[in-house]
Amino acid sequence: MNVEKTPLTLLGLGTMGTALARAWLAAGHPLTVWNRTAARAEPLAADGATVAATAAEAVAAGGLVVVCLLDDASVAEALTDADLTGKDLVDLTTGTPDQARDRAAWAQARGARFLDGGIMAVPPMIGAPGSGAYVFYSGSRALFDAHRDTLAVPARTEYVGEDPRLAALHDVALLSAMYGMFAGVAHAFALVREEDVALKDFASLLAGWLTAMTASVHGTADHLRSGDYTTGVASNLAMQVAGTATLLCTAEEQGVSPELLTPYLDLMKRRLADGHGDEDTTGVIDLLGHRTDRAG
Amino acid sequence: MNVEKTPLTLLGLGTMGTALARAWLAAGHPLTVWNRTAARAEPLAADGATVAATAAEAVAAGGLVVVCLLDDASVAEALTDADLTGKDLVDLTTGTPDQARDRAAWAQARGARFLDGGIMAVPPMIGAPGSGAYVFYSGSRALFDAHRDTLAVPARTEYVGEDPRLAALHDVALLSAMYGMFAGVAHAFALVREEDVALKDFASLLAGWLTAMTASVHGTADHLRSGDYTTGVASNLAMQVAGTATLLCTAEEQGVSPELLTPYLDLMKRRLADGHGDEDTTGVIDLLGHRTDRAG
Ligand SMILES: NC(=O)c1ccc[n+]([C@@H]2O[C@H](COP(=O)([O-])OP(=O)(O)OC[C@H]3O[C@@H](n4cnc5c(N)ncnc54)[C@H](OP(=O)(O)O)[C@@H]3O)[C@@H](O)[C@H]2O)c1
Ligand SMILES: NC(=O)c1ccc[n+]([C@@H]2O[C@H](COP(=O)([O-])OP(=O)(O)OC[C@H]3O[C@@H](n4cnc5c(N)ncnc54)[C@H](OP(=O)(O)O)[C@@H]3O)[C@@H](O)[C@H]2O)c1
Repeated sequence: MNVEKTPLTLLGLGTMGTALARAWLAAGHPLTVWNRTAARAEPLAADGATVAATAAEAVAAGGLVVVCLLDDASVAEALTDADLTGKDLVDLTTGTPDQARDRAAWAQARGARFLDGGIMAVPPMIGAPGSGAYVFYSGSRALFDAHRDTLAVPARTEYVGEDPRLAALHDVALLSAMYGMFAGVAHAFALVREEDVALKDFASLLAGWLTAMTASVHGTADHLRSGDYTTGVASNLAMQVAGTATLLCTAEEQGVSPELLTPYLDLMKRRLADGHGDEDTTGVIDLLGHRTDRAG
Repeated sequence: MNVEKTPLTLLGLGTMGTALARAWLAAGHPLTVWNRTAARAEPLAADGATVAATAAEAVAAGGLVVVCLLDDASVAEALTDADLTGKDLVDLTTGTPDQARDRAAWAQARGARFLDGGIMAVPPMIGAPGSGAYVFYSGSRALFDAHRDTLAVPARTEYVGEDPRLAALHDVALLSAMYGMFAGVAHAFALVREEDVALKDFASLLAGWLTAMTASVHGTADHLRSGDYTTGVASNLAMQVAGTATLLCTAEEQGVSPELLTPYLDLMKRRLADGHGDEDTTGVIDLLGHRTDRAG
């Protein structure tokens, strides 16, 4: 039996858009594409995509419209003349949570259902099962349910809620955490790089250690939920702060700038000074503040 | 057949020393212990340990002497009157690489073989197979080989080289990397904690993402070894720096201080400004400096 694949429109054929297009074409979805610089559509036309002359024309061609452009401003610009009435608009362009919220309101005012997406992958991972690629989605649950199979073609889907801000929020939160880890990794490599250390072996030890330490996030989540940061603490803040002297002295011995380490250690010290020596490090999160007066 | 277990001496019965003592006793090793505050030895005496009245007496009792005290200064103090001639001294006290180097020279001058250790575990993980606990060792390979079975009782062993500095260096490098990851995790939780996000689910997503991203350390090691930071780059520095605006705007939208994020992002920008837009993030490590004039 030949199952009909949902036709869709894709706006934006940059590195990521092109990877998405190839995945949908390979899966047999009729695909209409548009790109501001028309030349980038040519290889896809050869692979069976229909090339539209304008974004408005591309939007008119299908019910499901995916956009993957540089930034939110380019989405507004590309869709200025498009009629979105009755369309299902999926925005895979990276942006902030508030941009997603505003883009959702804008799309709804123009008669479309809206789903925002945050791609947790680089282009070579798209359409490659087992690559670990996935996309956070938030916004219209009805849209997501209607198209979940089509959306799952380029990468696994992870729907995180009706609030259109949530996909971008998850995306940014995970990327931010990653850069923190990269900072720690950079410091670690700086300490050992000039030593008689096999960097290949060191990398394996480092990856194994960090992987083991990721388990701590579950305890952090429990602490934030209960508000009690002292339960199940194996190594309390007082001990940890005492131990930071060795980390800083070692950086100095090795001639490595501590600039990537000190902001976190300083917050640990501040939390300890506030009288929380029996907690773990969860209290540092309280010192970063959070938005209490959310608009919108 | 009843295999004789190596007798050993342990100085220091703090939280960690006590966990080590219990592991060796449970495995049937004859154990002599000493602690500055004698009362902490009592429960171990009940479990079969021989309690020495002084550190010198404890050292005299065995060929293999393990110390696990507060810091390097307490090791010097505790061992002042001990005769180390012909002893195998294993120092599990946390310290800096240079402290380990100096302690090794000091022990050798007093006629002992020396092995330094860095414990990658909290006390409840000691003597618990499958806990993931391990100890970095560096220094005398002969000592390590002679006692590797005994040393493996409380936790898996990881010998990293003859230079006695290397165990502490590995220990500190991994702990430093961990605090970087914790900093990223703290920022991530701060972004989402006030939102309609199930923190339990978020923690699972975060742990999975960070675990996947640890794989990047292998590429970093390859780059440092080759000196070419541009090979196999899926997402170059120019693109990554462009993407940081979204991270910073989101922090601002959410009312979260970017202080844990900006030091790394600033180094990425500096490296980009130096003309390395086609690299990945390895070049940040070059900006942290390293010791070129190592003494010793
Ligand atoms: N690449 C990745 O690793 C990755 C990973 C996750 C998420 N993303 C996100 O995916 C999106 C696309 O990324 P990419 O890597 O494909 O970027 P890219 O290769 O730089 O492509 C940018 C695309 O946006 C178009 N564009 C820019 N300004 C425009 C405007 N004013 N009007 C219409 N079109 C405009 C470009 O058209 P022209 O061809 O005419 O310039 C091009 O199609 C971004 O939001 C990015 O953050 C990328
Ligand atoms: N606990 C952990 O999670 C952990 C993890 C990895 C590594 N370590 C390392 O293991 C070592 C011991 O840690 P711990 O948790 O057992 O610490 P602890 O519970 O605070 O115990 C400290 C020990 O050092 C002794 N001590 C302190 N100053 C001394 C001195 N001047 N002379 C003689 N003895 C002295 C104490 O004796 P008194 O009983 O007389 O005070 C006690 O036995 C430290 O280097 C620590 O960094 C600990």
